[in-house]
Amino acid sequence: MTDAVRARRPGGRTARVRSDVLAAVEAELAEHGYDGLTIDAVAARSGVHRTTLYRRWKTVAGLLVDLLAAGADDSWEPADTGSLEGDLIAVNREVHAALTARPSITQAVIAASFRTTEAAEALTRFWEDRYARTALVVERAVARGEIPAGVDAHQLLLTATAPLYHQLVLLRKPMSRSEADHHARVAAASVR
Amino acid sequence: MTDAVRARRPGGRTARVRSDVLAAVEAELAEHGYDGLTIDAVAARSGVHRTTLYRRWKTVAGLLVDLLAAGADDSWEPADTGSLEGDLIAVNREVHAALTARPSITQAVIAASFRTTEAAEALTRFWEDRYARTALVVERAVARGEIPAGVDAHQLLLTATAPLYHQLVLLRKPMSRSEADHHARVAAASVR
Repeated sequence: MTDAVRARRPGGRTARVRSDVLAAVEAELAEHGYDGLTIDAVAARSGVHRTTLYRRWKTVAGLLVDLLAAGADDSWEPADTGSLEGDLIAVNREVHAALTARPSITQAVIAASFRTTEAAEALTRFWEDRYARTALVVERAVARGEIPAGVDAHQLLLTATAPLYHQLVLLRKPMSRSEADHHARVAAASVR
Repeated sequence: MTDAVRARRPGGRTARVRSDVLAAVEAELAEHGYDGLTIDAVAARSGVHRTTLYRRWKTVAGLLVDLLAAGADDSWEPADTGSLEGDLIAVNREVHAALTARPSITQAVIAASFRTTEAAEALTRFWEDRYARTALVVERAVARGEIPAGVDAHQLLLTATAPLYHQLVLLRKPMSRSEADHHARVAAASVR
């Protein structure tokens, strides 16, 4: 997210301050988790004065909400591999990489969502946006005549991606990339 | 879980104290969540003296760990409906009921697992036990000749159940019982 946040807002001091602050939030969150995230640490890492942070973001939760908002308005879209199965495998590999990164921002944000309502709401909005964009893989498959129109894109994406979240976040067990691929294949086969 | 805990340990004062305390933990957790769970409230509700609670369970996390341990050693096993699809639908309806109960003990325990390592470890053990028992639906299907031997039971159960956890716990969106049934059907079809 960091590079995307930086690249997207080339101009303006306000935009630069935001991108520096959010990059610092991301780094602190990854290193120390939500419990270790403090306004002072973000100030020290970003070089932005703490009074600016308090004025603009108010709380640690406010910083996290803005980090997720910045992620949602980036230009991400799912890879176009030419087949539904290939597209779903690519999606699952991205989810797998995000959840198994050490440290994982995604895991830290999920944990934070169980601490504050604001973080939970921001994460819900972020995922709604991501799942809506990912529905493009279904639209492309319908346009190619690969699957019938009327397939429920959200249900299909749940079949593909939910096993990764359940295993790696809630069950707290490892999952290999080939197992992640398997769940993408099961999803693709379910609508053929 | 409460009734099972009670029924299983008919004799002994120590066993009775434990079942009264765990019933109180469950009720407090459901009403107030992990943040609202206190030794004093459990003492008041169970009628067991707080010094006993501190001596035997030490902390609120200790109480939660014991609640999950009690759930794991009960006699639960998956319903036998005569078909893999029927069995998976029955499993998904149980998961759906547990996650959509108001209040939901399961949702409260999952939230607690992001607060303390002890709760996370206890929940991991509880689920390992439950998924291992649920593998019986796959063994029965193989024995009936409905599916080939060698099907990965855990992957199959992830395909069935993970969408419910992802949608209802992490995405924090509703899911109907018929959608839960759909994911059981997708899982059953994936191994035929």
